[in-house]
Amino acid sequence: MNILFLHAHYEKKSFNSALKDLAVEHFESKGHTVKVKDLYEMNFNPVPARSDFKTQVNTEYFSYLKEQMHAFLNDSFSDEIKAEMDDVLWADMLVFNFPLWWSTTPAILKGWLDKVLAIGFSYHPRDKHYETGILKGKKAFCCVTCGGSEEAYSKSGEHGDILDILHHLNHGTLNYCGISVYPPFLSWRAHLMPPEVLEKYLADYKIYLENLDKTEFLY
Amino acid sequence: MNILFLHAHYEKKSFNSALKDLAVEHFESKGHTVKVKDLYEMNFNPVPARSDFKTQVNTEYFSYLKEQMHAFLNDSFSDEIKAEMDDVLWADMLVFNFPLWWSTTPAILKGWLDKVLAIGFSYHPRDKHYETGILKGKKAFCCVTCGGSEEAYSKSGEHGDILDILHHLNHGTLNYCGISVYPPFLSWRAHLMPPEVLEKYLADYKIYLENLDKTEFLY
Repeated sequence: MNILFLHAHYEKKSFNSALKDLAVEHFESKGHTVKVKDLYEMNFNPVPARSDFKTQVNTEYFSYLKEQMHAFLNDSFSDEIKAEMDDVLWADMLVFNFPLWWSTTPAILKGWLDKVLAIGFSYHPRDKHYETGILKGKKAFCCVTCGGSEEAYSKSGEHGDILDILHHLNHGTLNYCGISVYPPFLSWRAHLMPPEVLEKYLADYKIYLENLDKTEFLY
Repeated sequence: MNILFLHAHYEKKSFNSALKDLAVEHFESKGHTVKVKDLYEMNFNPVPARSDFKTQVNTEYFSYLKEQMHAFLNDSFSDEIKAEMDDVLWADMLVFNFPLWWSTTPAILKGWLDKVLAIGFSYHPRDKHYETGILKGKKAFCCVTCGGSEEAYSKSGEHGDILDILHHLNHGTLNYCGISVYPPFLSWRAHLMPPEVLEKYLADYKIYLENLDKTEFLY
């Protein structure tokens, strides 16, 4: 299986990066082919711009959506965006590895979603989304380090259920493109935890990964 | 009242920008003082970096959260971040004007939230959030142009209730900082609508704005 990591943590010594490293090692040890996109290291630019397209459908009025559709139909995405899309097409599974910032992805990963999962390429709102999403057949999961406690992210917690909070990403984004999404792997308050708790999280992640192909999809 | 707009659409002739213009005109006609931050025009950089801080607490290990806390305690945010914070402090009300991209804000606005609503400045996870959030007393609302239909964003729609989808922003972000949040103003599929529907949306927004101070907060 080809596995693409989208990694959005700037610190290689972080616990978040350790989770990524563990998963990469796990998948490689099982014989899978892994590619890691370290978005900070790549200096990925999350801001949409005309330079994302080699030709323009309208130079007077900038509609990113219309330019995306035009670029898809004319194979005229910038080399940078095209390379990302080629990696998505290559992958059988995508792993989104990020810290939860304001209940969602950091901006650098949000921009990757905005720019790479383009209309035409990954979905069409008319007839190619969810069950008929263009990336159907691919799988994905999120590995998320949450700064708050598990209790705070429970149904009765102050933030609400983490699965409801991540619904916009797991369902409204990834599954919208047709991708089958596993439940996320979550860790809590890692930045405040002693080494033994971090070791436990890593051990739990190992078990999560071992059981992944027997796990039911969330969407 | 001082009103700060965070505007995240690159096209000045867009319907999204027309909504922003209408609201600015409305508030100014009522005697309020308005400041508009056009994030694309400002070339706002949404990616966190060491350059967001004038001094560093740890040059070996980059924790954005720890650097934010240090910068808050030592008044050492970069001039760019500091200017944004000063505007937030100046404002009695914040208006977030953006198109819904993948069920949340475009990356440029997400980065503004990540970088400007810093720990210490707008919240502290221990004892200064929600009811005790540091920005308590301020108000906010979102004006969101949604590419999908109202039906698709209803409880039984394919995406689910738009208020649930925006919960992570209205509740988990703005209200977390103590800000009281009005229900959002929403428009649907504007890019596909004839002029008379767009006119109707603008008229509805005018009514929304007229009634705002009699409107109950969502959070």
